[in-house]
Amino acid sequence: MLDWEKIFATRSARMRASEIRELLKLLEQPDIISFAGGIPDPALFPAEDFKAAYADIMSGPQVGAALQYSVSEGFLPLREWLRGEMAKIGIECGTENIFIVSGSQQGLDYLGKLFLSPGDTALVNWPTYLGALQAFNAYEPNYDQLTPNGNRTPASYLETAAAKGGRPKFAYLSVDFANPTGETVDFEGRKKVLELAEELDIAVIEDAAYQSLRFDGTPVPPILSLEIAQKGGIDETRTIYCGSFSKTLAPGLRVGWVVANSAVIRKLVLMKQAADLHSSTINQMAIAHVAARGFDAQVAKIKAAYSARRDAMLAALSRYMPEGTSWTKPEGGMFIWITLPEGADGADLLAKAIVQEKIAFVPGKAFYADGSGANHIRLSFSCANEATIEEGIKRLGRLVSSEMKAAA
Amino acid sequence: MLDWEKIFATRSARMRASEIRELLKLLEQPDIISFAGGIPDPALFPAEDFKAAYADIMSGPQVGAALQYSVSEGFLPLREWLRGEMAKIGIECGTENIFIVSGSQQGLDYLGKLFLSPGDTALVNWPTYLGALQAFNAYEPNYDQLTPNGNRTPASYLETAAAKGGRPKFAYLSVDFANPTGETVDFEGRKKVLELAEELDIAVIEDAAYQSLRFDGTPVPPILSLEIAQKGGIDETRTIYCGSFSKTLAPGLRVGWVVANSAVIRKLVLMKQAADLHSSTINQMAIAHVAARGFDAQVAKIKAAYSARRDAMLAALSRYMPEGTSWTKPEGGMFIWITLPEGADGADLLAKAIVQEKIAFVPGKAFYADGSGANHIRLSFSCANEATIEEGIKRLGRLVSSEMKAAA
Repeated sequence: MLDWEKIFATRSARMRASEIRELLKLLEQPDIISFAGGIPDPALFPAEDFKAAYADIMSGPQVGAALQYSVSEGFLPLREWLRGEMAKIGIECGTENIFIVSGSQQGLDYLGKLFLSPGDTALVNWPTYLGALQAFNAYEPNYDQLTPNGNRTPASYLETAAAKGGRPKFAYLSVDFANPTGETVDFEGRKKVLELAEELDIAVIEDAAYQSLRFDGTPVPPILSLEIAQKGGIDETRTIYCGSFSKTLAPGLRVGWVVANSAVIRKLVLMKQAADLHSSTINQMAIAHVAARGFDAQVAKIKAAYSARRDAMLAALSRYMPEGTSWTKPEGGMFIWITLPEGADGADLLAKAIVQEKIAFVPGKAFYADGSGANHIRLSFSCANEATIEEGIKRLGRLVSSEMKAAA
Repeated sequence: MLDWEKIFATRSARMRASEIRELLKLLEQPDIISFAGGIPDPALFPAEDFKAAYADIMSGPQVGAALQYSVSEGFLPLREWLRGEMAKIGIECGTENIFIVSGSQQGLDYLGKLFLSPGDTALVNWPTYLGALQAFNAYEPNYDQLTPNGNRTPASYLETAAAKGGRPKFAYLSVDFANPTGETVDFEGRKKVLELAEELDIAVIEDAAYQSLRFDGTPVPPILSLEIAQKGGIDETRTIYCGSFSKTLAPGLRVGWVVANSAVIRKLVLMKQAADLHSSTINQMAIAHVAARGFDAQVAKIKAAYSARRDAMLAALSRYMPEGTSWTKPEGGMFIWITLPEGADGADLLAKAIVQEKIAFVPGKAFYADGSGANHIRLSFSCANEATIEEGIKRLGRLVSSEMKAAA
């Protein structure tokens, strides 16, 4: 029998099952209160709108086109709608700057593929979106730390990278209510990331998956919009913006988008032609149909529900979590990030949480490229109602308190 | 401004726009008779069945699941249906051996990603499916020739490969009515490919995209079925089978599948989790809905239409093509492959064909990993009716005859 490990590519060594993901699979029991998920609440999907969209498409003159192969760039009316949305947040561009992908996860995979040769360096936050690390891992990079404010010491940094034989290629960051922290990079931080990218002469990948889900506070302009304002046009920029319909309309259709200067978009289109030809034609049409008729109303509905849940979770955390713990106060999104005392281990805590308190969350370590961050946990408030949140956080507070007493 | 070429990965040098594809974009004029496409006839799509499928899904209890994230392995009822189909052609396996991809093109991309490190060797036919070369190119392999019968001289071959620093990883071949030749690998040829793979200790990628579209002749068992029979079970095999719904139901949903031993499937699932999470949930449900209710009837409908078109094209070729040319007689699929006299150039012929005769086809060179094959052209019969085929081949015969006279 063939010894597969002998013929797999070297990159396959970095494709490993996540222990956490395997553990969480076991949690789909109704008596567990789970804050682990990080997925949108299906009760809030615009199901009637999608039903009407598929019915219209399948009854209309475009039915043949909906079922047929289509162009790798993406469905033009959807890209035209996105051009209007992008303009509203300061990203003036043409449809030739907008590329449709099968979810923004695919955008991250393609960007890793476009930029990373083995040994190249990707700058990421500690912690960062786990899915980005997984996507980039396939291209065998090194990681180095991008601080939340973009600060680094480029000269010494470049020496280190050169000594390792690689070259920094991009800084990746999630800018609004990031997964896992819920934090937003402020205006100054965004400018500093751009400055760093200029100094290092690298690209910026701006993951804006949660951007529409701001509940309160003041919107911060996208890095790409700052750069367009500085440079005078999108084709002069180094920032690549990744958007998603998964958190606003529905993830099951797998539709997201990338906005960038046309040199990058042209390469991504060639890459997609070779990798999966194009994203589902009918789903792109359905997204365009629903977005054009009710995107803002749908976003308002989700924000109302999620912000009430965030409020409930923050209130419960204040009530039940012991001294010595802290947490973020996100202005949107789906996540709150808890910092436990030094020495605490989120993975150990999860094992006890499941058995003793029947609650679940994600231990923080998985989000760190260097494997640090054990004393953090991620909570998602997107899929639980307020009463469940109250009960779940009460249990979490009880467990953390008793663990801290035991450790003292 | 950032010099993108400086920071793109080395692989990006192999992502180039196909001249032919660019040329063919110009051909979407109604007065051109095109045999270039290679896409299914949209008039034959089971549009009513898909309309009913989407309506049922969006009105039923699974609507939330249809719009939600789902598992990377693929929708279980679809994999169960496929298990039954695979068993009918001698591929006995479990659902853990079946993996859903976003079109079989994605299967090829993932297999390139799983096996190929830069400099490794992929064995392919001269000519082979252009999309496979494009998918594999991203992983920077060398190519070497796999003859239609799988013959090679492994010992000397391995020495050459070792001298180049790479290692052969797999033999890729399209087995039934292949794109571009329309030819089928016979029983002996399939056994020889397997023997070669055993000697070289490499995998076999069996592209079966057209398998269901056999109009006449005797079906040849898939290589994977031969190997399962030899070895006693799928988990002992080295053959990876790629299937597609694009030629039978519809390409616009982007649903295909891969069947292999579970060691390979597990790696592919991890890869997909990192690359795009999963294929569209709702589309997998729609495909499962339509396939379960009428796959065989749909395939029968397509075969009746395409076989009449093939017959018309073969008859017209006999009538109009001059001495000194030859062509394949496919038992199914969508393509006929024309061999022109040595020295002829399909690309030159296309340029003249468009201007002088208002017909189009694909020059053969693009399908050769070594850039040879200039004296071939590919014709597709899938999208033209019999009268158009007659007229188009008449024009082709006239052009080729006059070119051959001019060259004589």
